[in-house]
Amino acid sequence: MYENIKIGLLGGDLRQLALARRLSSIGFETAVWGLGVCTAEIGSAVRCAGWRDAVRGSTAVVLPLPASQDGVQLNCPLAPETELRLTHIMNEVPDGALLLGGKFDSSIKQLAHKKHIPIIDYYECEELQIKNALPTAEGALAIAMNELPITIFGCMAAITGYGRVGKALAKVLCALGAKVTVIARSIEELAWAEINGCTPMRLETKNNVSTLGNLEGYDVIFNTVPYKIFDRAVLERLSKDILIIDLATSPGGIDSFAAKEFGHKVIWALSLPGKVAPFTAGNIIGDCILEILSREGVISQL
Amino acid sequence: MYENIKIGLLGGDLRQLALARRLSSIGFETAVWGLGVCTAEIGSAVRCAGWRDAVRGSTAVVLPLPASQDGVQLNCPLAPETELRLTHIMNEVPDGALLLGGKFDSSIKQLAHKKHIPIIDYYECEELQIKNALPTAEGALAIAMNELPITIFGCMAAITGYGRVGKALAKVLCALGAKVTVIARSIEELAWAEINGCTPMRLETKNNVSTLGNLEGYDVIFNTVPYKIFDRAVLERLSKDILIIDLATSPGGIDSFAAKEFGHKVIWALSLPGKVAPFTAGNIIGDCILEILSREGVISQL
Amino acid sequence: MYENIKIGLLGGDLRQLALARRLSSIGFETAVWGLGVCTAEIGSAVRCAGWRDAVRGSTAVVLPLPASQDGVQLNCPLAPETELRLTHIMNEVPDGALLLGGKFDSSIKQLAHKKHIPIIDYYECEELQIKNALPTAEGALAIAMNELPITIFGCMAAITGYGRVGKALAKVLCALGAKVTVIARSIEELAWAEINGCTPMRLETKNNVSTLGNLEGYDVIFNTVPYKIFDRAVLERLSKDILIIDLATSPGGIDSFAAKEFGHKVIWALSLPGKVAPFTAGNIIGDCILEILSREGVISQL
Amino acid sequence: MYENIKIGLLGGDLRQLALARRLSSIGFETAVWGLGVCTAEIGSAVRCAGWRDAVRGSTAVVLPLPASQDGVQLNCPLAPETELRLTHIMNEVPDGALLLGGKFDSSIKQLAHKKHIPIIDYYECEELQIKNALPTAEGALAIAMNELPITIFGCMAAITGYGRVGKALAKVLCALGAKVTVIARSIEELAWAEINGCTPMRLETKNNVSTLGNLEGYDVIFNTVPYKIFDRAVLERLSKDILIIDLATSPGGIDSFAAKEFGHKVIWALSLPGKVAPFTAGNIIGDCILEILSREGVISQL
Repeated sequence: MYENIKIGLLGGDLRQLALARRLSSIGFETAVWGLGVCTAEIGSAVRCAGWRDAVRGSTAVVLPLPASQDGVQLNCPLAPETELRLTHIMNEVPDGALLLGGKFDSSIKQLAHKKHIPIIDYYECEELQIKNALPTAEGALAIAMNELPITIFGCMAAITGYGRVGKALAKVLCALGAKVTVIARSIEELAWAEINGCTPMRLETKNNVSTLGNLEGYDVIFNTVPYKIFDRAVLERLSKDILIIDLATSPGGIDSFAAKEFGHKVIWALSLPGKVAPFTAGNIIGDCILEILSREGVISQL
Repeated sequence: MYENIKIGLLGGDLRQLALARRLSSIGFETAVWGLGVCTAEIGSAVRCAGWRDAVRGSTAVVLPLPASQDGVQLNCPLAPETELRLTHIMNEVPDGALLLGGKFDSSIKQLAHKKHIPIIDYYECEELQIKNALPTAEGALAIAMNELPITIFGCMAAITGYGRVGKALAKVLCALGAKVTVIARSIEELAWAEINGCTPMRLETKNNVSTLGNLEGYDVIFNTVPYKIFDRAVLERLSKDILIIDLATSPGGIDSFAAKEFGHKVIWALSLPGKVAPFTAGNIIGDCILEILSREGVISQL
Repeated sequence: MYENIKIGLLGGDLRQLALARRLSSIGFETAVWGLGVCTAEIGSAVRCAGWRDAVRGSTAVVLPLPASQDGVQLNCPLAPETELRLTHIMNEVPDGALLLGGKFDSSIKQLAHKKHIPIIDYYECEELQIKNALPTAEGALAIAMNELPITIFGCMAAITGYGRVGKALAKVLCALGAKVTVIARSIEELAWAEINGCTPMRLETKNNVSTLGNLEGYDVIFNTVPYKIFDRAVLERLSKDILIIDLATSPGGIDSFAAKEFGHKVIWALSLPGKVAPFTAGNIIGDCILEILSREGVISQL
Repeated sequence: MYENIKIGLLGGDLRQLALARRLSSIGFETAVWGLGVCTAEIGSAVRCAGWRDAVRGSTAVVLPLPASQDGVQLNCPLAPETELRLTHIMNEVPDGALLLGGKFDSSIKQLAHKKHIPIIDYYECEELQIKNALPTAEGALAIAMNELPITIFGCMAAITGYGRVGKALAKVLCALGAKVTVIARSIEELAWAEINGCTPMRLETKNNVSTLGNLEGYDVIFNTVPYKIFDRAVLERLSKDILIIDLATSPGGIDSFAAKEFGHKVIWALSLPGKVAPFTAGNIIGDCILEILSREGVISQL
């Protein structure tokens, strides 16, 4: 039904591949460039020899997540020797076509505005972040399963923070029979944690210092809070047997120097969806892109 | 540890009784009046002969939920012949003592302010509303179990709205193996519904008219949206075999005249926590009162 | 695909009605008699004026569950004034046709054998009993929800016995967040209970006397063991606040005289599937009948 | 309470270490030999310099699982250069002491009988096998999570066999939101699978040839059936994109030559509990040993 609408995909990893498969299965004319030697199935999408072939005639040009690693070159991990500047791509985007991508630098956004290219960062969509919480939670679960000498069933797990990732993680851990404590500041969030089957623990903050309750007896702590609640003082009191998995965006919530000094096992786990479930993550990006195309009037309401 | 703090409870139903048990078990001096002939166990709380005995010397006077049915008299269902005006109670509240209760009329609040009585409506606490979502969900589940000729396992259920009650209800239905569709406006809420295992269905709104998708094949619909999305047009298309349970606060989400005309089975289910699980509901009020006492400095932080 | 195969249904309640709907939807020529004034939808099944019309030409004649209440007359609760003896039905069953029904008396079976009528009691099918465990569990859950002044979430529940019903019941209670203890004799069953998330408690038996552990603090006990483990001695020690629901087939597991004497609240809950979820129960019978028809060569393998 | 009972543990891996910790925490005098350089916490258990010190005075001598890799030498992976024959151990077992271990060769059992040493293979305990199904299921889940490019949530999983491991695995997969099909022979097992939320699929067998249904669209297959149901013919029809995880004891259920020829990704996953959750597995052995000690009258009933 969307045969007359061409979407050009440039660069990216297995998520981009899953996205190509998804968009072509729905019926878009889908043109792909930059997946390099990856020979996996891309449905009825077409691999282009040159990137301009993929862009030409497109209603939307979709760059990967992130669009660029260095703010200059297209992120193209499956064709590593490639060099293609985002500015060059912009020069070829058809008039009126949308430029989509993840985590655009503000300088790129400004340039696009200057060139009157409608640019949309799909990573800023709240529903994408929500859906990404699930592969993140599964990725964190897999790390815990791989690292712990015990089963998740019956283990004592603490989660700091009860936002998107905290909620999804608590759900999967409870589903497998872990005893889950949620540590958070807001009594509303703790009320949710409680009716979702977790033990609530208040995170007190006085004079900018957070006071974690007693974590003795826990097997694993998952941190989702993006500031240092696991500071020197907290880490000093913490048993060395507890596995710590930090899911918070950089710089994370754990004082890494102190953790090293006290001999804690800490695993920093970032950008899990693309690593542990690239096809799922690509489909989530696909959902978001369809929503954007609908919102922008390219396709009729879903 | 709280022996020196007296709390006086007046009126109310089994929730008030559970509250008395809870507060006395924690160590408060707990004085109760108005539970009438109900002889159930109230722990170490003391039944007072006169209401003034319960109020005298109290640090906090706790009225039930709702504090009054008519805005004038204390709500006292277990001692039905009782007549005690809230204004009379206010005259006896000790200096500096808190006056707590649920769903105070604004006129009562204004009067309290005028009399310099610190008055707090615990029903306005967000965490109480969140925790109440669970007994509400269980109550709605019980109604569905009692009414439907099929098991919840495998049944097709639709929930309109994905706020507190919608979320709690979806969770219990999924837990029992129902196939749950969540119908909501916001794509963020639908993303949550999806990762929580439900099928998302968008509720479109144009020119103030909501358009429900096709609900053929569903066995039961739970409405939690407090305005008429089940209007004449929707109800006319709906199969008569579908059980409709309306959980939205008055006037609810279903056009009752049209429902009657078309022969739909609609059950209006309001104030479920106090009806289906009064002891749990009383304990939830207790949690909230402890939080208030802590916030107000009556007791140290929990 | 089964248009040439006629199935005649006689008597029964809403289960028989659901069965008629199911069989006709699959394509059998389905003839019904004895549902009386019940005007509910029976799909493309045909209501017969006389019972002989339903039986004539049938490949299988299906009697309800139970086939008879008194061992003589057909069980016909929806047409209560009806009187039709099973022996009369047998006289009209076509040559070679199967006679199916639930809980046949041994005298009826013997008579059928004598008359060379192939008779099969579908209630003896293990898979029907297994599937029936689920509506039984939901029915027991609904009773507990209706009776207890607390939510199932967080309640302390004990289940005696971990057979079909015990397993299904433990599952639904755990799913709703109850804390479930399974009391059983076999350490194998207790190992299953443990990995299914329940607390195991050994039921010791010495000299034919079972010794129940301490049940203080429990809110509800579900008994599934069909002999008196709740004898005088056990009941005397048990708190009167505990709700007892007896699911075991007659005479059940609770000494009713002692329970009355000590003031226990006991609910005897029998034959739940047909009461709480007749359509589901009818479909389960349908599954079983299809299995029997396949096994007997009437239809090809499912 | 068991200070006067000495238990000697020889050889083994981290499971034996967890067992030492468990037994010493209960109060047994626990003597350990053969954990080599492993410096992990063993509670109040005592590391012995010589194996005879651990055995001397013991009421029970506990060998690891398996007791021996080659039927001759003690299995001692944490002290790999060790050489200690089971026959030498037997010579030193105190009179009347129990000799416990896992997977004893029949020749060892015969020798023990000849020497009047009460020998018990704890791996033969049904309850240990049941409890082990859970770490096996979690281990299989972790493999699937590590290998699949999609989340378990929403994935299409098939499980062949519905015994101990099949049941535990179906449970964890369903808990995480996978769509699970159970393929089995017995309609009773399929009825259980159905009420546990799985889709049942009949495994037909004619003339010793099993016929698997259509597995198109599945993402992962877990085999638990210990004979070749995935033969050449089945594998030829199967999509190469499906991940196959074989959990069945050797020789497993998959024709490995054909799988290689057709390019299937097969993972053979054996003895998972000791690998993925050695501390849990050690505690499970501990449960079993306590049960044996109770049954044998060494300790009073648990």
